[in-house]
Amino acid sequence: MKPGYQKYIPFQPQKIENRTWPDRVITKAPVWCSVDLRDGNQALVDPMNLQEKLEYFHTLVDIGVKEIEIGFPSASETEYEICRELIEGGHIPDDVTIQVLVQAREHLIKKTFEAIRGAKNVILHFYNSTSTLQRKVVFHMDTDGITKIATDAADLIYEMSKPLIDQGMNLRFEYSPESFMGTEMDYAVEICQAVLEHLHATPERKVILNLPTTVENCMPNQFADMLEYFCRKIPGRDSAIISLHPHNDRGTGVATTELGLLAGADRVEATLFGNGERTGNVDMVTLAMNMWTQGIDPELDFHDINKIKEMFERCTKMPVGDRQPYAGKLVFTAFSGSHQDAINKGSQYMKDSGTEYWEIPYLPIDPADVGREYEPIIRINSQSGKGGAAYIMEHNFGFDLPKAMHPEFGSVVQHETDAVGTEITPERINQLFHQTYIDVDGPYKLLKHAFQETIDGEGHSHVAFQGTIQHTDTIFQVSGEGNGPIDAFFNAIKGEKMARFSFLDYASHAITDGSDSQGVAYILLQDQRDGKKYWGVGLSHNINLAPLRGILSAINRAKRARHHE
Amino acid sequence: MKPGYQKYIPFQPQKIENRTWPDRVITKAPVWCSVDLRDGNQALVDPMNLQEKLEYFHTLVDIGVKEIEIGFPSASETEYEICRELIEGGHIPDDVTIQVLVQAREHLIKKTFEAIRGAKNVILHFYNSTSTLQRKVVFHMDTDGITKIATDAADLIYEMSKPLIDQGMNLRFEYSPESFMGTEMDYAVEICQAVLEHLHATPERKVILNLPTTVENCMPNQFADMLEYFCRKIPGRDSAIISLHPHNDRGTGVATTELGLLAGADRVEATLFGNGERTGNVDMVTLAMNMWTQGIDPELDFHDINKIKEMFERCTKMPVGDRQPYAGKLVFTAFSGSHQDAINKGSQYMKDSGTEYWEIPYLPIDPADVGREYEPIIRINSQSGKGGAAYIMEHNFGFDLPKAMHPEFGSVVQHETDAVGTEITPERINQLFHQTYIDVDGPYKLLKHAFQETIDGEGHSHVAFQGTIQHTDTIFQVSGEGNGPIDAFFNAIKGEKMARFSFLDYASHAITDGSDSQGVAYILLQDQRDGKKYWGVGLSHNINLAPLRGILSAINRAKRARHHE
Repeated sequence: MKPGYQKYIPFQPQKIENRTWPDRVITKAPVWCSVDLRDGNQALVDPMNLQEKLEYFHTLVDIGVKEIEIGFPSASETEYEICRELIEGGHIPDDVTIQVLVQAREHLIKKTFEAIRGAKNVILHFYNSTSTLQRKVVFHMDTDGITKIATDAADLIYEMSKPLIDQGMNLRFEYSPESFMGTEMDYAVEICQAVLEHLHATPERKVILNLPTTVENCMPNQFADMLEYFCRKIPGRDSAIISLHPHNDRGTGVATTELGLLAGADRVEATLFGNGERTGNVDMVTLAMNMWTQGIDPELDFHDINKIKEMFERCTKMPVGDRQPYAGKLVFTAFSGSHQDAINKGSQYMKDSGTEYWEIPYLPIDPADVGREYEPIIRINSQSGKGGAAYIMEHNFGFDLPKAMHPEFGSVVQHETDAVGTEITPERINQLFHQTYIDVDGPYKLLKHAFQETIDGEGHSHVAFQGTIQHTDTIFQVSGEGNGPIDAFFNAIKGEKMARFSFLDYASHAITDGSDSQGVAYILLQDQRDGKKYWGVGLSHNINLAPLRGILSAINRAKRARHHE
Repeated sequence: MKPGYQKYIPFQPQKIENRTWPDRVITKAPVWCSVDLRDGNQALVDPMNLQEKLEYFHTLVDIGVKEIEIGFPSASETEYEICRELIEGGHIPDDVTIQVLVQAREHLIKKTFEAIRGAKNVILHFYNSTSTLQRKVVFHMDTDGITKIATDAADLIYEMSKPLIDQGMNLRFEYSPESFMGTEMDYAVEICQAVLEHLHATPERKVILNLPTTVENCMPNQFADMLEYFCRKIPGRDSAIISLHPHNDRGTGVATTELGLLAGADRVEATLFGNGERTGNVDMVTLAMNMWTQGIDPELDFHDINKIKEMFERCTKMPVGDRQPYAGKLVFTAFSGSHQDAINKGSQYMKDSGTEYWEIPYLPIDPADVGREYEPIIRINSQSGKGGAAYIMEHNFGFDLPKAMHPEFGSVVQHETDAVGTEITPERINQLFHQTYIDVDGPYKLLKHAFQETIDGEGHSHVAFQGTIQHTDTIFQVSGEGNGPIDAFFNAIKGEKMARFSFLDYASHAITDGSDSQGVAYILLQDQRDGKKYWGVGLSHNINLAPLRGILSAINRAKRARHHE
């Protein structure tokens, strides 16, 4: 064997003239078929038990999947039992079709017909392997021999179906030339054509031709070329439903499916979260939600992805990855400060503009569409910018910090994340905010105070303030007047040492937390001695008191800063 | 806002005449750039500490990555420190270039220049956001304003670089029109052209134009169309290195990269196992090994994927999924019986044919190429066919069961898996094999025996057998002659009740387990009374004794079966 990469035979692309698929776009959902209970289940370390399979089946029905491959009933007693329980237990809605898989072998086909008796809608799915490699190393057979396996099975299935169809069963057929992507296209066309003929397919009684990427061995565009070539050449195209069954060995299962749909496919076999042999089958959730975000109805319901994920993880014992598109724990999380800032502005734009469309950068989908939330979008670590902390304060705790305050609080949080070296929680950010701005009750304290407010004949307000202030051990009285409480308070402390500050900026709003509502005031003062600026925050149920507390907070922060210098 | 999927604006494909990318194939590795320590690290719940970053950096160097983005040194102290430590600590080999990211803002650029002093090879990577959406909702700026941000930064960078370049630093530039895929292509061309000019790019001093899929928002073929269009239109094409930076929001990051390479890209920014914001960056391992399996040297070394995975999981605290291509725990596992059978036959074909190429179905890569093993490929559960158990007996325990014996032992294992409802281990399969075939020492036991072997003048062998057999409480002597030990034993028991069997088949081989070697014999007998067939297995250090034990095993199994009827 040649060493390293040299031992691999490069994929030979199918030549095609005037390909048309790259000029197309997807405009509607394909027919969906779930293979979770077959391909997905067989690839589990612990296959599902009967109870788990039933729960999984019902979830698929709730999602809106209308064709569900339930297993390989001829392969084992377990598989046979689930088929019988679904039918006899009345689990299958009238508009749902069960699909059963069987190899193109007589005794297995007969057992499969036993398994499906009494069902209303059935797809009987048979297959044999057609690839060049398998013909050579596994079957030691020429193409005629391989075709005969398929057509013999088709004949048997057609004959055995007649009485069931006469009895009213809606029984359809699906054929897979297994390892299609490793088969010469002209031979794939030949064997599929033979099967269509032997099953007496017509445009009224179409047969599903499922073309599996059993092992993904080429690029998605190369697969699309093969598929377009196949669809052009197959004589009974309008008697066939072209179905895809992609795996993900090269990590391009989703792309292979999407490009395959452009190239002519009508139907997709997939699993939830891409469970399946080896690297898995293609993920139905990603395919559907990719359509959704392009304004296309996927005809599947993933509005509560967490519930589906919980069922999936419990029944399969396989975790859904944190970065799994649309479903992973971290996919609605933005760590980067500039991303956070842009999301913030996008949300604001949507509010202000009243746009009919989703226009938020870095969030390709509204998390609410899959039952997820905005709240955990932003986490703060040492890589987050100054906007992140303010975002958390607004969205998690209702504090709408003035824009000009963001850098100061941002650097407080930055200092903390640099120090601890990990992400910090929203709770910790809230704690830092309170420690820094609100719980600053010294050196100055307002012990008690009174306001008197009068409105004169012209509607001007006049406020008189009287208060008792403590500075470490000293207690003193102040009083002043002004056109509002802040003005009056500032005038009251004018003669004091604490008053060497200019008033620069002010903002306030209410914070409602259930039945409780408080006022919060943000105050920016400038120390006249060194020109430094300090924000202070005051919180109170009394709307007049909040700004006073904010002023004291700013003064106290300034004093403390000077003390530490 | 419109409801559900209707609120999304479909992606508007770039029109392109005579696209050429679908006719190309990948023939060589791109320039690789790791963004693990920047994009990857910033998206961790627990960002790496200095020690972890250093270990990660050294792993990337060992893999063979020559361009490594180490962070955003102007963003925080932590980021600045790692940059200084890498440079001052002598961690960077002479042939490795560190890349530092910075926004197109003056004070951040200045800080970044401070951070890189003393480095030998540096790529200074600056960016600003150019997309239609971000211009509208974030920057409230027209394209001229956005271009000016980029060209002002380019001017500053160019000026500040001169002294460093004069001092001998190999300092190159990279510009990213961030959210490229949401930018009108003609404007993307315009701004990139302006940046090339302001950086004085020439074919000798190329500038990297990195075109990020910041959020994946279209199909890979649509991205390839955009890229081919861009590459055609950009005037300074030969003064630029076209770089990709794909994310994975639609699950098609790998495909976007591969089709992007067809469409003209020279370079790829990626991370190990696809770590990165939200759904992650594109996975470098998958990209590289996809090339490897097409006979292309990826110029990256993943021969010990487990070691790399261990480092990754420890430093990032993010698990690598079980179905992750090339690296996941289950990707070299085949559960399906027909897959197992084909792998078995493929291995045999490779041995027999002496082929120079890898030709095994269902294994797109030789697991040994990434330091993984064949041994755990096959696990046995209720979905496994009869070939699986025999494969385990051969590959894990050295028992090469005759083909005709596979169905019988397969059904023993099937019975067990149906009963327990879960996968069973190779050890349990070996136990079932011994219980069923080897530890069957009753009702008949061979208490003692002797052979006499003579070869006549013509070379014919003649064997005389004498033995003592116990049947429950009865003990009796037997003797017989024949042309070999089996023949002689059969003749010896001819008159006994135990002898109502015809001899149908026989196979034997040695089992070597370290220094110990035993013979194993597989015997197929047919009960003359009811026509039923029984396999027996004998194991002994004595090559003559193994088949006798095999015969007694088959007889005893027949007696027990009859007893149970």
